[in-house]
Parts: sequence; structure tokens; C-alpha cells
Amino acid sequence: MSAHITAPTQQVSEWLSNFGNALDRADFDAAANLFQEDGYWRDLVSLTWNIKTLEGRENIKEMLKATVSEAKPGRWQAEGDATSDNGVISGWLTFETAVSRGKGQIRLRDGKCWTLLTTMTELKGFEEKKGATRPTGVRHGASPNRQSWLERKTQEAAELGITRQPYCLIIGGGQGGIILGARLKQLEVPTIIIEKNSRPGDSWRNRYKSLCLHDPVWYDHLPYLPFPDHWPIFSPKDKIGDWLEMYTKVMELGYWHSTECQSARYDEAAQEWTVTVVRGGETVVLRPKQLVLATGMSGIPNVPEIQGAHTFKGKQHHSSKHTTGEEYGGQRCVVVGSCNSAHDICADLWEHGADVTMIQRSSTHVAKSDSLMELALGGLYSEAALKSGITTDVADLIFASVPYKIMHTFHIPVYKEIAQRDADLYARLNKAGFLLDFGEDGSGLFMKYLRRGSGYYIDVGASELIAAGKIKLKSGVGIERIKEHSLVLSDGTELPADLIVYATGYGSMNGWAARIISQEVADRVGKCWGLGSDTKKDPGPWEGELRNMWKPTRQPSLWFQGGNLHQSRHYSQFLALQIKARMEGISTPVYHLSEVHHLS
Amino acid sequence: MSAHITAPTQQVSEWLSNFGNALDRADFDAAANLFQEDGYWRDLVSLTWNIKTLEGRENIKEMLKATVSEAKPGRWQAEGDATSDNGVISGWLTFETAVSRGKGQIRLRDGKCWTLLTTMTELKGFEEKKGATRPTGVRHGASPNRQSWLERKTQEAAELGITRQPYCLIIGGGQGGIILGARLKQLEVPTIIIEKNSRPGDSWRNRYKSLCLHDPVWYDHLPYLPFPDHWPIFSPKDKIGDWLEMYTKVMELGYWHSTECQSARYDEAAQEWTVTVVRGGETVVLRPKQLVLATGMSGIPNVPEIQGAHTFKGKQHHSSKHTTGEEYGGQRCVVVGSCNSAHDICADLWEHGADVTMIQRSSTHVAKSDSLMELALGGLYSEAALKSGITTDVADLIFASVPYKIMHTFHIPVYKEIAQRDADLYARLNKAGFLLDFGEDGSGLFMKYLRRGSGYYIDVGASELIAAGKIKLKSGVGIERIKEHSLVLSDGTELPADLIVYATGYGSMNGWAARIISQEVADRVGKCWGLGSDTKKDPGPWEGELRNMWKPTRQPSLWFQGGNLHQSRHYSQFLALQIKARMEGISTPVYHLSEVHHLS
Repeated sequence: MSAHITAPTQQVSEWLSNFGNALDRADFDAAANLFQEDGYWRDLVSLTWNIKTLEGRENIKEMLKATVSEAKPGRWQAEGDATSDNGVISGWLTFETAVSRGKGQIRLRDGKCWTLLTTMTELKGFEEKKGATRPTGVRHGASPNRQSWLERKTQEAAELGITRQPYCLIIGGGQGGIILGARLKQLEVPTIIIEKNSRPGDSWRNRYKSLCLHDPVWYDHLPYLPFPDHWPIFSPKDKIGDWLEMYTKVMELGYWHSTECQSARYDEAAQEWTVTVVRGGETVVLRPKQLVLATGMSGIPNVPEIQGAHTFKGKQHHSSKHTTGEEYGGQRCVVVGSCNSAHDICADLWEHGADVTMIQRSSTHVAKSDSLMELALGGLYSEAALKSGITTDVADLIFASVPYKIMHTFHIPVYKEIAQRDADLYARLNKAGFLLDFGEDGSGLFMKYLRRGSGYYIDVGASELIAAGKIKLKSGVGIERIKEHSLVLSDGTELPADLIVYATGYGSMNGWAARIISQEVADRVGKCWGLGSDTKKDPGPWEGELRNMWKPTRQPSLWFQGGNLHQSRHYSQFLALQIKARMEGISTPVYHLSEVHHLS
Repeated sequence: MSAHITAPTQQVSEWLSNFGNALDRADFDAAANLFQEDGYWRDLVSLTWNIKTLEGRENIKEMLKATVSEAKPGRWQAEGDATSDNGVISGWLTFETAVSRGKGQIRLRDGKCWTLLTTMTELKGFEEKKGATRPTGVRHGASPNRQSWLERKTQEAAELGITRQPYCLIIGGGQGGIILGARLKQLEVPTIIIEKNSRPGDSWRNRYKSLCLHDPVWYDHLPYLPFPDHWPIFSPKDKIGDWLEMYTKVMELGYWHSTECQSARYDEAAQEWTVTVVRGGETVVLRPKQLVLATGMSGIPNVPEIQGAHTFKGKQHHSSKHTTGEEYGGQRCVVVGSCNSAHDICADLWEHGADVTMIQRSSTHVAKSDSLMELALGGLYSEAALKSGITTDVADLIFASVPYKIMHTFHIPVYKEIAQRDADLYARLNKAGFLLDFGEDGSGLFMKYLRRGSGYYIDVGASELIAAGKIKLKSGVGIERIKEHSLVLSDGTELPADLIVYATGYGSMNGWAARIISQEVADRVGKCWGLGSDTKKDPGPWEGELRNMWKPTRQPSLWFQGGNLHQSRHYSQFLALQIKARMEGISTPVYHLSEVHHLS
């Protein structure tokens, strides 16, 4: 078939019609040939019961062969008007499988599909009750001994985990656990979230005093209950903490605060977990069918082992334990590290009158917050985007529609522009000795975040302090050893210090699996996060998706939920649907469970 | 000018253009002549700095003469597409005055204006910060000794009312106080809300256990933070209580719980109030410029004085103190009254196995909740309305656009339909001896609510219990006296009783003014609520608007906020703008402050 020049929407409709027909005939060659030779299909749970990007016709054909007979995808329909830009036609679509409904996005080039995104939106027969199907709230008529909402809620809280087992247990009641818990609640999956702190939101409240979200409000919405219109662009940590606490209550989540997990093991025969937790001092054994680690995508704090550290007479702690610079006015403070936390903490210490030195061990990507907003995020997540009809849900799908394999090519030009726009700042940072990079391929901040979850600073002011020498800098050095009142650096310098903050990042999330379950299970699951890009801290082979996140792992019934608010919001939809399907006994054949190439 | 037959939107545009021109020329005859002889203009604060309906050309002309030179209304523009239905053209409009922007609605008949609504949406230069103008949340750059959001918030809470006086004090922290507080917060008016209970939402939580909102969710949204899509149609009382508590925190209101007002007096010279409150046991004197009573539009509980009541050996209390029927299983319970609370409490007692008798002293309007939803409210406040583009804000304006003088004519046909649809229930209620009415003119529930705030039951099940004799009924009788274990009725019957609940309603809101300020001020202000319809409990003369609500009263700087959630939401906008204007020293000449005809 030659590519007709027709209106964009018609082209999308025709493509979908041809595609649907090919699938109906089980003609997978024909279906795959509707893609470009190097076309992509990203499927979020709809056909693969996995989070999977098929790269190239052959892989697409293989997936179709394996999944179509059971998934029975059909009813492919264009939704709304497609648009054409620079030879690429983009459009929305809806479709169904035997058990679900879905929404997707397609890009056509020369009449063939360049990228296809398919996402599951709901399971048939298990739709969320909302809008016209929302609950009545009161049962009209007279029923002796009816329970009030409060009585029912109180009873449920008293029973769940005590006399009745939750189907799902989420370990970690930060944003990731709370958001997933909200989705599971709406899907009527009995769930308990356990959290070691005493209040929802404490994982934010307990961080350093000056912390504000580095991402803007449009990017940060929680599902079901968006922030109001007057919400600040960059939420202060205590304000987001309060919001999470409110959200947990309003969404009526089963939230066990002041609860720590002692151990978890999977009983293959019973196909359930045995999880021992200590709740307010009392030991409780839970037996959920599904276990989710939502313990922070950053895993366990990394504190480097440095010779002599135990002899240090001043204070020393990991950045996750640092609260405020208040008590350090006039003191000599050394911050080890050069990413977000390191910069924020340096600036806060400087603002409180401390003598601050940052130790930059290796190069760091820096991008000004304003520039990121305007050039990188603004098109999808901003007031202007909203005005042009790009709601958060729409933006999430557009974001998800770009295959990771080619995502860097979308980012490189943006960061070229940022480099030009802020050339003056970069020059002054250089001059101050700061080691800068834009990622190995120049693709900047978000790719670094995906590949290694680290390596950058979103500049909200500290860079100027460094450029001006107000925050002192030692770069390209390591720490040789620590003495009672100083650090000795690899270049021989000795830095006197009253405080050392290790802003040295976090380990892989499977570290939590090792700690809570076993090293064996942690190794079976392997490294979490990262794409296999073969760049620093993200070794190959290429994975095509983030390792282990929001999708089945090599350990049955063990899941990882996490990421920034955007990811927690968007991907929790698919994790929740996977869990719900299992609870309802819906067949969920997982296509191509990932291989494990790295243990951490 | 003869009425041209043109497209509806064009007709509206032409009318507005002619109207604007007439006002610009100060030709008030011409402007008034653009209205029908019996046309209406309802102004919410824009021109009149009052809540005022002008009825007929003459009154419109008088108002224009008095207000136009200072208000300088202009820039009248049609907004969106007007529609035509049954000879009436309806359209939206925007306009400005010298100091404000506004939105309005117009209905044209035969080319002339039948009804015009003008509402103030914002004061120029004092717009709410939202969307593109929302706060940043963080000050980028480095500033020594910066305060975090939490520190600033804590300091403000420590200072307001202690070292710094609030501009506005709201007495009553139920829904009305909270909603107004939220609007004032967004307008940056320093405000304290005082509430005698210990938590926001307790005024709902403390009511009888089975209580659910009688109005549906679409009608009940609070401003800024609408209920999520899964929120139940009829909110259980504790759930709405939790929402109000969350809302108070998220909106960062200055909320003094466990605080009671002892006294308030106005200092004419200083133009401020001296208000003595007891906060957690400690006396604090506040000196706000504006005082708002948000103590519940129902005012102080009415308990009838009945001979011998003090000799009663069982329990007796007003419905506002009744919590649950739990402890009354098997007991003889008498509920005096036949409106919402009476019915709900009777049903709850019956559900708990009590022997229940309702004493109906006079006829009551009954309408089934479902019928009200479908026939009365559904067109504006429902999922279907939402789908057709009628958001809550739009619905509120449509609702507000119907002048009270003719509102009953919109309602009578609706209640005729309800009477037919539910004829079977009404017949059975009749047969059971229940005295029914549909209001004196057949205009049903909402007009009763506006006229007297009472006299009806939204049936959610109790009517069937009455029809079936499960709730016993004594109707058309009064209570002669109360003995140790019984009530003697006016027809001579003696009813044995272990419990008497007085579901006998509430007094006018100015009763609160008498209690808190003085009888003199309560009398100066006069009766609150009611339209002067000259129907039962709403004596004439005709007022055209609810007495004293959300608008200037005869007592300077004293305001009344209240009503159901719909009214609290919608009218708080205008009350907040009136207060903000006064704080900013904007001239607010009040057109035609209402006369006082009744003291309570």
C-alpha cells in the first residue's frame, strides 16, 4: 500500500483499520509491516502484561505472535483530531483487549507507524466507580442496624491485617506507596501501607529544612485529587508533606504509621508472603498475596567507607539525615557530593553563615530551574500547556509515548539550547573549577535521571554561590582519609571540618529486598532502575525499559513502585491494574520477563 | 428599535452594545427602556455594593442614576454562544466597573431584557494568585536567614490575633466560616475563624449518626478544591467532617478551635470591634475591623416551652443534640416535629428497634430525594449537567440568574411533576394521616427553604416507614403538657415516652447577634433569611433578596455568612470581595441598604 496524502486524522484511522484487520486475520507479518523498519511499540500492560518496548518489526511480530490469541486486541479507533508536524502525524487512539480497555498514541511517518503506545486504562467489569457510577453514599430506605460510614470505616480498619488479610502489602508510605495505595483503593484491592514514620508526609518533612520540590506543580499532581490552582509551582517540603497526609485520609487508605517491616518471605506453595512487622511496638504477621516495595526509588543511603571516618570528632551524617544549617553558623562544613542534595545543603549552610566547602568527586550536570521549566518541561507541564489542552493526563501519555531508545535524541537539542542560553553561568562555574557535563551524549538531566537516578543539580541558586566562591569548591578529588578535625583529600590538601555531610546518593532499590527479604531474592530480582544505556552507572545490555519498576520481576508477587511524583502517578496506574487482575483471577501471561544482568 | 430576528449571540451582542452606549451617555431612560416593562436586574455587588434585585424599569433607572457615575460600568461583551429556547434568548457576558471585573447572564425576550444578572468576580489590582500567577513556592537564589514555608506559617499563626490584629474575624468554623475563610485567605485578608469545637468538621460530626448530606455532591463543592470524581453523591456526615478538616489545613486558614466568643461590641469611633474570646481556657481580646457571624443560618435551637417538661423523667433534648438511636432499642420515643431532622431521627430510632411516634404539628412538604435529583436539581447539578458543560461555577450563575420574584414560577411545574410521579407515596402518606403540602403556592422545597428555611423533608426512606405505620404518627396536634412518663396531646391522647426529641428547628441568625453583641444590635439588624413572600413564617413586605445574608446590614461592619453548601460557596465570593474592598480602602457606596421590618 502506498502512502496516500490524506488528512492526518484519516491517515490514523486508515492505519488503525488496516492494523486491526491484520490482527483479526492473525497476519502478523502484515501487521508488523505497517510499522517502519525501525518502528517502536511501547506497551504498558495491555497486550504484554508487562512494561515493554518492542524495537523494530521483528520484535513487534514476535510479540504479536505470542500475545494476540489470548489478548484479542480490537476496536482500534482514532480519538480526536490527529495533527501533522514536520512530516510526522500524531494521533490518539482507543482499543480493547479481551479483558481491558485502553488508550494509545501513534506517530506515523510516510504512512507507516514510527511509534505506537498502548496503555491499559481499565479492566472490563472492574472499572473504578466515579462520575456517573460513583457510590450513592447513603442507602435510601430503612434497614435495621445499618452501619454509618464511620462505623464501617472503623470496623474495616480494625479488621484489615488483624482478622482479615490484605491482598496487597505496600512497604513504604511515602509518595509512591500512598499513590499506589490510592489506586488500589479505587480498584477495591484490600491493601495495607506500612510506614516507619508517625505521619504520612514525614518522609518529606524529615528532610533538610530548605527543601522544595525541584519539579513544578503541573508535573507533580497526585491522581484523583489534583492540587488546587493556587498551589505554588515548587512545593515546600512541609506543604507537600501536609498534602500527602490529607490525601491519605481523604482517600481512606489503610495506612499503618509507626510500623517497620522486620522480614518477609515468600511461600511458594501457598503463593503468599509472610511479613513480620512491628506496629507501634507490637509484632504483627501479615500474609498478603502481593508485596510492593515502595521504599524510595533511591534505595538505601550510600555512605562511602573512608579510612578514619570513625575518628572524626565533629558531626557527620548522610544527606538524608541532614535537617538544617541553623546550628552550623560560623562552623567549617564539608559537603561530599555535587548533586541536588549537596547543592541545596551547601546553600542552606551558607545562608546560615557557615564556612562551606563542596567536594566534587566527578563531573556534574547543572541546569537552571527556569531554563528546564521553559525549554524542557514547559511544553507538557505548565500553565501554557494546560491552556492548549494538555492536561496532566494527556502530558503523561505524550511523555510515555517516546521510546527510551530514541528519547535522548529528543533531549539533546533542548540541552544545546540550555547550554547557549546559560553560557555565562556555565563559563563562570568552569572558571570556579566546577566540573560540568551534559551527560555522555549531551542529553542532559532527565536521561541521567532515567539511566542512573543521579548526576545532576537543578540550579535554584547554589551555582551562583559556587561561581562567586561563596561556597568553596574542591573538585576532581577524592577523600583519602578523615582525621579527628579534618579531611585529607587525594591531592594532599587537608580540609579542617566541624561537619561532614555525605550527599553521596543511594543504592539500588533491590538493596531493600536484600534487607527485608533475602540477598537471594535481591539477586534473583537484580538491579532496579536504569535502561542499560552503557553510560556511566548504567551498564548494558540495553533493556528498553527501567529495570524492575512497576512490572513483574523474577520474584513472583514482588513489585517495585517508586520514582518522582510524575512516575509514581503515571506508572502506579499500570502496577495497580496488574495487581487487581491477579486478585480477580484474570489470566496475566507476562511477555518476556526481563533477564537479570546486574545484581546492584 | 424594533426587534430584529438575528442569531442569538448577535442579539445579545447588540443589546449589550446599545446598553453600554446608553450608560456611556448617562441616558438612563434609554438604558432602562432596553429592559421589558417588568424586567429584572439582579446585581451581586458590582454596581450596588449590595445584593440587590431591581424589579421593573423604574427601579432599574433609579439604581443606574445612583450608581453609574462612580461605578463606571463598561466593556460589556457577550461571552460564548447565546442560545434560544421557547422565545427566550440566554447568553453570558463580561463587563467591568472602575474597580472590578464581572461576569453576567442575560435573558432577552422580544429583543428586550427580561432578566440581567451582574456579578463581581474580582477587584482590579487585587486578583487572586492562581494559574499563571500562582506563587513560586521557593525564592530562587541565595538569601541569608531565609524562612522556610513552615517557619513562616508557624510565625504567622503565633502572631495573628496576638501581636497583630486580624482584619476580619469569623465567628463559627463550620462550612460557612471555613469557605469564607478560604476566600479571604486567597484575597490576602488577615482572618481568624473561631470555632467552639475542637476540630474543623465537628459541627457535622456531632450530629446524629445516620446523617448524610441531603444535597448531592455536584451541589456541594467547596471553592478551590472540588471533591474528587469518586466522592459519593450524598456525603456521610463524618466524611464531610473530615473533608472540612483537611480543607482547613490545606487552605492554611487561621483557625482557632476550642474557642468561644464571650462578647463583641463595635467601637464607632475606632471603627473596629472589640471581641472577647476564650481560647482553650484563656481569654483573648481581638480587635478586627470586620465581624462575620457564620454561626449556622439556622441560628439558635428552638425548644418549645411546654408545661411540665421539667418534670419528665425520661431523656429529652433538641434534635441538634441527638446522636444515635443505639441506646433506645425497645424504648418509647417521641419525636416532636416533621421536617428533615425529625424524619431522619425517627428512621434511625426505628432501625435501632425503638417504638417511635412522630408528632406532626402542621403540614409538611415531602419530596423524594431521587425525584428532586432528577426533576429539580439534575439539570444544573448532576453528572449529566457536567457532561453538557454545566460545571458547578456555571450552574451557580444560572441558579443566581433567576430573580426571586419569579423563581416560584420556575418551580411550580417541577413540583406538579413530582406530585404525579410520586402520587402513590403521597396517597399512602395521606392515608396514614400525614399532613402534606407543596408550599402555599405549590412551589415546593427550595422556595420553602428560601422563605423560611424549614417545612420540608427530603425523603430518603422515612416516608415509607410512616406510610407503613412503622413510625407511628400523631398529626395535626400540639402538645398540651408533659408528665413524668408521657406527653398529653391537644386531642387528649396520652403518649407514654422514655425519650422526647424536639426536632423543632432553629431561630433567626440575629439571635446570635443578640447573644454575642446585644439585643440592640440584633434589633437594628432585624430578621435574617426569608424573602418577605408573605407566606407562612416569611412575612412581607417583599424584600427581593434574602434578608441580611452576605451583604451590608444596618450594623456597620457586621456580616452574616451561611446557608447550604451551594449558598456558602457561591455567596461567599461576594462577601469576601466586599470585605477585601473595604480593607483596601476602595469606595463601596451601598445602594439601598434594606429596611428592617421584622425583629426575628
